[in-house]
Amino acid sequence: MMDKIKVSILGSTGVVGQKMLRILENHPYIDVVNLSASRSKIGKKYSESVAWVEPGDIPERFRDMKMVSTDPEDHKNVDYVLSALPPEVAEDIEIKLIKNGINVISNASPFRMAENIPLINPELNYQHLELLEKMDTKFVKNPNCTSTIMSMPMVEVLRHDYKKITLSTLQAVSGAGFTGLSYMSIDDNIIPYIHGEEEKIPAEISKMFGFVSNNKIINRELNMYVTSVRVPVKVGHMGIMNIEFNDDIDIENFKNSLRNFTPLKKFKNLYTAPKNPVIIHDEENRPQHKMDLSNGMEIHVGRLEYKNKNLRMVILGDNLVRGAAGITVLTLETMNEMGVA
Amino acid sequence: MMDKIKVSILGSTGVVGQKMLRILENHPYIDVVNLSASRSKIGKKYSESVAWVEPGDIPERFRDMKMVSTDPEDHKNVDYVLSALPPEVAEDIEIKLIKNGINVISNASPFRMAENIPLINPELNYQHLELLEKMDTKFVKNPNCTSTIMSMPMVEVLRHDYKKITLSTLQAVSGAGFTGLSYMSIDDNIIPYIHGEEEKIPAEISKMFGFVSNNKIINRELNMYVTSVRVPVKVGHMGIMNIEFNDDIDIENFKNSLRNFTPLKKFKNLYTAPKNPVIIHDEENRPQHKMDLSNGMEIHVGRLEYKNKNLRMVILGDNLVRGAAGITVLTLETMNEMGVA
Amino acid sequence: MMDKIKVSILGSTGVVGQKMLRILENHPYIDVVNLSASRSKIGKKYSESVAWVEPGDIPERFRDMKMVSTDPEDHKNVDYVLSALPPEVAEDIEIKLIKNGINVISNASPFRMAENIPLINPELNYQHLELLEKMDTKFVKNPNCTSTIMSMPMVEVLRHDYKKITLSTLQAVSGAGFTGLSYMSIDDNIIPYIHGEEEKIPAEISKMFGFVSNNKIINRELNMYVTSVRVPVKVGHMGIMNIEFNDDIDIENFKNSLRNFTPLKKFKNLYTAPKNPVIIHDEENRPQHKMDLSNGMEIHVGRLEYKNKNLRMVILGDNLVRGAAGITVLTLETMNEMGVA
Amino acid sequence: MMDKIKVSILGSTGVVGQKMLRILENHPYIDVVNLSASRSKIGKKYSESVAWVEPGDIPERFRDMKMVSTDPEDHKNVDYVLSALPPEVAEDIEIKLIKNGINVISNASPFRMAENIPLINPELNYQHLELLEKMDTKFVKNPNCTSTIMSMPMVEVLRHDYKKITLSTLQAVSGAGFTGLSYMSIDDNIIPYIHGEEEKIPAEISKMFGFVSNNKIINRELNMYVTSVRVPVKVGHMGIMNIEFNDDIDIENFKNSLRNFTPLKKFKNLYTAPKNPVIIHDEENRPQHKMDLSNGMEIHVGRLEYKNKNLRMVILGDNLVRGAAGITVLTLETMNEMGVA
Repeated sequence: MMDKIKVSILGSTGVVGQKMLRILENHPYIDVVNLSASRSKIGKKYSESVAWVEPGDIPERFRDMKMVSTDPEDHKNVDYVLSALPPEVAEDIEIKLIKNGINVISNASPFRMAENIPLINPELNYQHLELLEKMDTKFVKNPNCTSTIMSMPMVEVLRHDYKKITLSTLQAVSGAGFTGLSYMSIDDNIIPYIHGEEEKIPAEISKMFGFVSNNKIINRELNMYVTSVRVPVKVGHMGIMNIEFNDDIDIENFKNSLRNFTPLKKFKNLYTAPKNPVIIHDEENRPQHKMDLSNGMEIHVGRLEYKNKNLRMVILGDNLVRGAAGITVLTLETMNEMGVA
Repeated sequence: MMDKIKVSILGSTGVVGQKMLRILENHPYIDVVNLSASRSKIGKKYSESVAWVEPGDIPERFRDMKMVSTDPEDHKNVDYVLSALPPEVAEDIEIKLIKNGINVISNASPFRMAENIPLINPELNYQHLELLEKMDTKFVKNPNCTSTIMSMPMVEVLRHDYKKITLSTLQAVSGAGFTGLSYMSIDDNIIPYIHGEEEKIPAEISKMFGFVSNNKIINRELNMYVTSVRVPVKVGHMGIMNIEFNDDIDIENFKNSLRNFTPLKKFKNLYTAPKNPVIIHDEENRPQHKMDLSNGMEIHVGRLEYKNKNLRMVILGDNLVRGAAGITVLTLETMNEMGVA
Repeated sequence: MMDKIKVSILGSTGVVGQKMLRILENHPYIDVVNLSASRSKIGKKYSESVAWVEPGDIPERFRDMKMVSTDPEDHKNVDYVLSALPPEVAEDIEIKLIKNGINVISNASPFRMAENIPLINPELNYQHLELLEKMDTKFVKNPNCTSTIMSMPMVEVLRHDYKKITLSTLQAVSGAGFTGLSYMSIDDNIIPYIHGEEEKIPAEISKMFGFVSNNKIINRELNMYVTSVRVPVKVGHMGIMNIEFNDDIDIENFKNSLRNFTPLKKFKNLYTAPKNPVIIHDEENRPQHKMDLSNGMEIHVGRLEYKNKNLRMVILGDNLVRGAAGITVLTLETMNEMGVA
Repeated sequence: MMDKIKVSILGSTGVVGQKMLRILENHPYIDVVNLSASRSKIGKKYSESVAWVEPGDIPERFRDMKMVSTDPEDHKNVDYVLSALPPEVAEDIEIKLIKNGINVISNASPFRMAENIPLINPELNYQHLELLEKMDTKFVKNPNCTSTIMSMPMVEVLRHDYKKITLSTLQAVSGAGFTGLSYMSIDDNIIPYIHGEEEKIPAEISKMFGFVSNNKIINRELNMYVTSVRVPVKVGHMGIMNIEFNDDIDIENFKNSLRNFTPLKKFKNLYTAPKNPVIIHDEENRPQHKMDLSNGMEIHVGRLEYKNKNLRMVILGDNLVRGAAGITVLTLETMNEMGVA
C-alpha cells in the first residue's frame, strides 16, 4: 500500500481551515498530521482552540490533536503544508517555511502574482504545475475564491475572439471570514465594495490563463471590468458576466463545450475532483444557492442568453469549497498524480 | 384657499397602496376620499380590510373609511383615481374608469407602452404630460419600479454618445409584493430571474427618454443589456451599470451634472419632490440600503469609476416610494403645477 | 433475503414529503413504490410535479416515477402508505384508505387525539403500538413536530413529582410549510402566535405519555402552559422549558438518565434511530441550530439549571426530520421490528 | 426664555450614542455641546470619527463638532454628562467625572446595583430620584435594556400577591452593539445564552421596584426565573412572561390598569415620554417588531391569557430607544421637571 501524503494545516481554526479538515477527514491518501493556528493556541487541543462552525461535530480524529506553531521545525515531518492563513500573517510564515525547505500550497493572497509561482485552479491550468519540476522546495498558490469560481466558464469564452468582459460579483459573507462582517452591517443590506477584490479578480484570472515561458508565467491580457458587492447570503459567490464577442459564436456549441469540459479525466485518483466541473442549467431560475451548492467543487452556470454577439451568463460556486479549501486539496491531488508532489 | 384635489386609491390594501396612504396622510392639497380593494372588502372599514405592514399604525383618518368598489360610479366624486392595482386586474378596471370619464394615474403595467399614454418619471419627462392637453379623460402611467430608479442617472448618460449599457439589477423582495416570495425560497439565497423584468426595463426607459410627435411618444432607441436577480433584502433596488462611450467623457462634469439635475425647480408646490433627485456618493462603500433610503424619493449613485471610455455606477433607490407610491403622487403634483390636472 | 416493505408517499411534493424521499433514498428495507400529491399532478413525472427544495438534487430513482392519485386503488400494491398530507385534505383521504384496507402511518393532524389510534414518538411510547395487534387495518399517527421534539426530554421530567411545566417554543419557518410564511412577514420579525399550536402541544404530549387500557389510550394529565412564537430561522424548533418539582431532584442523575435513555436498543434494524435520542450539552451556548442539527433525529438539550426545585432546559430538534419525515420512517421501522407491521 | 440644559454625550459614536443624537437633534431644551468617544478620536470631527448606522444622515449640527476626551476638564461646561460608554471603560471614567463634580446619567452597567445610586426607569420609579437631593454631584443609572423593557408591565403584576414569575427573553442583535455579533454566527440561528443577562434582569428589576429608606434603595424581593436567548432580529427585545398568582386576579382590570398607567402625566414638559408607556394589544398576532416599534418609548404587551391563577404576557420594546438612549433622555427630562436636575 502506498504511503499516505502527510500534511500540516496552517490556519486550521479558521473557516477555511475547518472546511479543509472536513474534506480531509476521510481522505484515502492524504493524512493530516499537524494543525496550527495563532501562537496563543500552541499546545492546546484542537477542540479547545477552535470556535467550530462547520455543520456537524469536529471530526473525532482531530479533536485531541495538540496545536503546533507555524515555525518550520514543527513541520519537518510533513510532505506539504497547506496554508489557510489570513493574508496579513501569511507572507512571513510561508516564506520562512519555503526557505527551510518545506513545501507549501497556499490559499493566502501574498505571492499570488509572482511570475515564478504557479497560481492553480486545477482544471484550468494544471499544466502550470510543470514549473515545480525545477523548484527544490515547492510553492504553489491558489487564487482568490471569486477568481477561482468566475474563471471556470471563462475557459470557453477565451477560446473565442472577444471584445470585453463585464462582471458583477455578488459575494457571500463567509468570504470575509467567520467574523468578518457583523450582522448589523450586512443583514437586509448590500455593501457595494469589497476591498481589493476588483483588482485581484482580473489580475489573477489573467495569470491562470497565462502560459509558461522560461520558467515563468506570462499573463494573458484581458479586457475585463469587475464590480464586486457583498450580499446577505452566507455561502456562495454569484457572478453576472456579460461578454461581447467580435464574431458570432454558436451558443449551443458553447454550452456543450462547457458541459464536456473534463480536463482532469486523464488522472485517476482525484478524490475531490467533480465529474463535471461546470454544470449548465437551462431552467431560467437556476443556479441558486439553495439548490446548487451540495457538491461544493462544481461551478454552476445558467441564464445563458446570446444576442448580437453579446453573451450573458450567471455563475455560482461555493466560495469555501471550490473557492478555498477544496481547491487546495485538489491541487495537491493533481500534483500527486502528475508526479510533481 | 384652493380646493384640494380629491383622489381615490385603488389597490389601497396592498403594499404600494399603504405606502400611498402614508405619503398622502398629511398632504397639503391632495385629499384621499375613496379607498378600494378587492370586491370582497366593499363596505368594510379600511382597518378591517387591510393587513397593515407599513411601519407605524394606520393613519387615523383612514381607519374607519368604508371601502368602495372599483366601479366608475364609486369614483364620480374624485378628480383622479390613483391606481396601485395588481397587473392582472388593472387592465379591465382602468379602461372602464377611463371610458366613464374618470381620470387615472396608474402604477400598473398594462398600457405602459401605449404610444399615446405618457409614461412619467417626473424629473425625466414631465414634458410628456403635454399629451394630456388633448385628452378628454386623463390617463397617465408610471414606469415599473426598477425602470424608474435606473433611468434617473441615465439622463446624463444619454447626453453623450454611448455604445452600450450593461445593467445588473439586484432587486428587493418587496418588489414582488408583500406575499410574493416565501421566506424559505429567498432567505440566504439569490434567485437569478424575475419574470418579464429584463424586457420591461429597457422598453420603458426607451419610452421615458422618447420624444413627442403628433400626440404620440416616439421611443428612443437604446442598446441596453439587462440582467435582473432577486436578493434577500426587503426594500431597495440596486443596479450595477456599466456604460461604454464612443468618446471620452469628463467624469467630474458628469458627476456635477447629476448633482445639479433639478429640472422640477421651476415648479413651486411639489411636496414630494426631493431637492436633488440624484445624490452622488464619493465614499467607496455607498450607496447602501441601510444608510441611503431615508428619503425614499432620491436616487443614490456611487462607485463611479471611469477608465478607457467605460463608466461604472452603482445605483440605489426605494422601490416602494420613488419606484411606486411616491412617483404617482409626484406625477399628480406636477400635473397640477403644469395646469394639466 | 427478506422482502422489502413497500410504501407509498402521500404529499410527496411537499417539504416533508421531499425529506421522506431523502431519508428513504437508500433505505435498506423500505422501498418507495408510489408517489402521490394533488390531483392535478397525476400521470406526470415526479420531477415535473415538484418544486424541489431539499439540498442536493432529486434522488435519481424518483425523478421519473409517475405520480398516482391518493385513491385506494392506486395503493393496493403497498404494505403501508406514509402520509405527509396537509391537514385540510388528510382526513378524507386517510379515512378512505383505511376503509379500503390500506395501512396508513401519518404525520397529519386529523385523528391524532382519537383514543384508539396510537400517536407514536417511538422512543417514548413504542409500547402503544400494541394497539395495532387487534386492528385489521393499521392506522398510526405521529405527533406534531413541536410535540415530538419537546416531549423527548420530558420522559425524565415525568418520572418525578412535578407541579407545573412552562414552555416557550421558538419555532422555525419551515414548520409552516415551504410557502407558509412570506419573507416580508417574518424576516427581522417574530410573530408571537401560531394557530392551534398552544393547544396541540400539551394535548398530544398527554396522549404520548398515556397508558393503554381496554385497547384505548388513557391520556396522562399534565399541568403545562405553552406559548408558541414564530422566529426567523429556517429549520429547528427550540423550546425553553421551566419545570417546578414538588420535591428536590438530583440534577446530575437527571442528566445521566437522559444521556442513557436508549429504549430502542433492544431492536436491531432501526436504521433511522439515533444512538442516543437525547444529547445533553454542558457548554452554555448550546444547543444551536448552526451546530446541532446535523443528525436530524437527535434532540439536543442544554442550559440545564436547577435551583429551588426549579429546572430550566433549552431543547432543540429538527422539525422536518425528527419532527416529521424521520419519525414516520422510524415508526414503520419499529413496527417492523416489533412484528406489528 | 429658560436656558437650555447643556449636555455631553460619552460614547457618542456607538449605536446608543448615535441614537441619543437622533433623539436630541431637535430637543427643545436639551443642548448637546460636547461629544466624546475613544481617545484616538479626540480632535477629529464627529463625522470623521463615527461609523454612522442610524437611518438617515448624521444630523447637520453634529457633523463638524470636534471630539473631546472623556476627562473631567473637557466637561466643565455642561450640566450633565450622558454616558453611553461600553461597560469595560465606564467605571473608571464615570467615577472620575463624579469625583470632579460633574453630574452623570449613565446607561453603563457598573454601579447599577449600588444602593445609594438611583436606577431609574422613569414611569416606574421616578420617586427614587429624591435620593439626588442630598447628593452634591448627581449620579444616576439607567437599567439594562432588557430590565427596562420587561419591568414595565410588572408594575401591575407586583400589585398582586404572586408566587413566581418565569421569563424567557428573545433579544435582538443590536443589544450586543453594532459589531457585537457576526452575521455568520447569528443569521438563521439562535444562541441560547447571553453573558450576565439572566442575573442582571431580576437584580435590576428588584432594585427598580425597591423603596427608599435612609438615603438608600432597599431592593424588593422577587421570585423570578429568567432565560435569555439571542435571536436574529436587529432591534426589539421580546419577553414571554408567565406569572403564577396566589389569588385570582381580574384580568380585565389588570389590562385596564396597564392601559391607564400614566404616572408621568403630572409633569409637563417631558418631550420623550410616550402618552401611554404600556400599549395593550388584543389581536393575537401582536406585538410584532415589524408593527410596534415606531414609537420607541412605548412597551407593547399582547397575548394576555389568564387561567388557573396563571397569566401569560408577551412583551416587546425597543432596546435602543426605551432600552438605552431614550430612557436616559427621559430621565434627565424628569429630573428637570422634578427640580433635581
